[in-house]
Amino acid sequence: MLQQPPAQPGMREDAVDTPALIVDLDAFEANLDHMAGLVAAAGVRLRPHAKTHKSPVVAHLQAARGAVGQCVQKVGEAEVLAWGGVPDILVSNEVVDPAKLARLAALARIARIGLCADDPRGVDAAAAAAADAGVRLRVLVEIDAGGGRCGAAPGPDATALARRIAASPHLIFGGIQAYHGLAQHLRTPEERAAAVGAAVERAGSVVEDLRRHGLACEVVTGAGTGSFALEAASGVFTELQAGSYVFMDADYARNQAPPPFRQALFVLAGVMSAPRPGTAVVDAGHKAVAIDSGLPLVSGRQDVRYVAASDEHGQLALDPGAEPLALGQRLRLVPGHCDPTVDRHDWYVGVRRGRVERLWPVAARGAMA
Amino acid sequence: MLQQPPAQPGMREDAVDTPALIVDLDAFEANLDHMAGLVAAAGVRLRPHAKTHKSPVVAHLQAARGAVGQCVQKVGEAEVLAWGGVPDILVSNEVVDPAKLARLAALARIARIGLCADDPRGVDAAAAAAADAGVRLRVLVEIDAGGGRCGAAPGPDATALARRIAASPHLIFGGIQAYHGLAQHLRTPEERAAAVGAAVERAGSVVEDLRRHGLACEVVTGAGTGSFALEAASGVFTELQAGSYVFMDADYARNQAPPPFRQALFVLAGVMSAPRPGTAVVDAGHKAVAIDSGLPLVSGRQDVRYVAASDEHGQLALDPGAEPLALGQRLRLVPGHCDPTVDRHDWYVGVRRGRVERLWPVAARGAMA
Repeated sequence: MLQQPPAQPGMREDAVDTPALIVDLDAFEANLDHMAGLVAAAGVRLRPHAKTHKSPVVAHLQAARGAVGQCVQKVGEAEVLAWGGVPDILVSNEVVDPAKLARLAALARIARIGLCADDPRGVDAAAAAAADAGVRLRVLVEIDAGGGRCGAAPGPDATALARRIAASPHLIFGGIQAYHGLAQHLRTPEERAAAVGAAVERAGSVVEDLRRHGLACEVVTGAGTGSFALEAASGVFTELQAGSYVFMDADYARNQAPPPFRQALFVLAGVMSAPRPGTAVVDAGHKAVAIDSGLPLVSGRQDVRYVAASDEHGQLALDPGAEPLALGQRLRLVPGHCDPTVDRHDWYVGVRRGRVERLWPVAARGAMA
Repeated sequence: MLQQPPAQPGMREDAVDTPALIVDLDAFEANLDHMAGLVAAAGVRLRPHAKTHKSPVVAHLQAARGAVGQCVQKVGEAEVLAWGGVPDILVSNEVVDPAKLARLAALARIARIGLCADDPRGVDAAAAAAADAGVRLRVLVEIDAGGGRCGAAPGPDATALARRIAASPHLIFGGIQAYHGLAQHLRTPEERAAAVGAAVERAGSVVEDLRRHGLACEVVTGAGTGSFALEAASGVFTELQAGSYVFMDADYARNQAPPPFRQALFVLAGVMSAPRPGTAVVDAGHKAVAIDSGLPLVSGRQDVRYVAASDEHGQLALDPGAEPLALGQRLRLVPGHCDPTVDRHDWYVGVRRGRVERLWPVAARGAMA
């Protein structure tokens, strides 16, 4: 259910109710601008991933800086964005359920809607839904870029899918998607370059196959915050799907020194118990901050570590000689993983220079269907 | 934000939109009845933990079977329950923030409200909020039962806290809480018995200390689904806080053979991609099913394993010779951990004999402040 916002505009950050999802607006806007500059210089398009932010407000801020549209993973996310005025949305994922496809076809009346397919039955189901609604849906062929999750194998399978899409009067062939999720989180630049290099080769081979069959592939889309510079420079990718760059997290920051973007997302936590010297407990456990990619860091306090998360508690360990923490004191936590952390919260609290400037709903929170 | 329900009453389960949170109503009701019988036989009271279910509907079903009230971890959860007609609520957690305490004091006008303290400043803050609102708040002393998280040390600290509460005209001394969270998930019965035995000893010593100071300790509350039979038989605990028993999960089921309760909670997932033999991908990743206590199991399919979770994808591995999975096919996943899985969803879909019988909102979902 929608929760009440933990803050009001004008409030000081240390008066915000905890836990709360804080956006440092200076850092966030710097990230938006920096990425806009990078993609412009590289001559590629940016279609940021809304799985990170789940907010039409953020989507519009990205569009104002040149983003050509948004990616989503779920039909429910597409609905929230389209209903919030986002005009161009790609579901960067397979959709095969007829009820979900009917919802997408309905959305195609108010926005440009694309989706992915990696199986001829998915293509046929999308065509049936589009025919039934009297619209045309844009379908991209997802190829397995090397991650071994979804995606058709490059070669005859991918080519046949593209031709099947192009042959349908109810579909538009939208290009190919080659997203390498695993590559985003590889630890060294060399590992990421090798993984993305292989993905570029696979994508390029499919583009060439299609050209030989007379099918122009105007869009090759993929990439994430961990790898986008490689895809941008590849000469094969035309569109980048990076999402996390707007907020960043501890996991992405570990992989690049210095990180190319600023940490803009925090979970504000309050100290609720400090029964023994050297320890304290904050009111943000893993229901408030995702731990799938590691525990959060404590921002600005290198002498305090978040050492264990239970559902509603975060256990802190203070280094010897650390300044003690007071009951009620606020701490900013840097999430280990931004996307699922955002998805736990109903509200963004936008802060600048210590004061709450804006509240935004996490409008597609929980839009998992 | 509140999402649309993934089902309607009367629908067949295999038509429910995915992912969806499924309650097997026969199993759920059997669990409610079984626990009610166990606590009645043991002569203790049951105050189930709403951190699991986050639903006034479930709370009322538990009350109808004799539960004396509910536990919550968060003020926001207390609000949702009180506004939903639950008359007796214990925040089984420290609350030290003045704004949160003011919200609790306001609730004390429509429900019997308790909270925990492990620090004299917490007691004073609760007294100030109660005085300001013109109500009395019930405060329990939380002792460290052995888990080393929150809680005052048994001995002079705990006694002084109890006396401080009892001395305030704005507070009621409500007893002690001795919850051993770590003990719930120890793997063997012997380990759990040793941990709870130590907790019982600590709690008993505090009760005795208080008696010597002329303070009757009418409530000793604690225990969870992993240990409650031990506390129930202790002669020291008067009230059990078990919550997960209503739903169960893969982690609790691993610890007791046969499990004393039935698996009643599932995440229904749909197969969205199956590009290579022996693998498939479902549309429920860790945004839909919590993985902090291990990956989900695939119910009824011992030949299929859920082997990796990304944000929105679950990777399945099929054993050699396994019956293939069809695109669009539904699978019931058994969550590794029920509480945070529930907290990802907006709706319970109550199913009996293959059909949707009821929808309940997860009313306190995201009530983390």
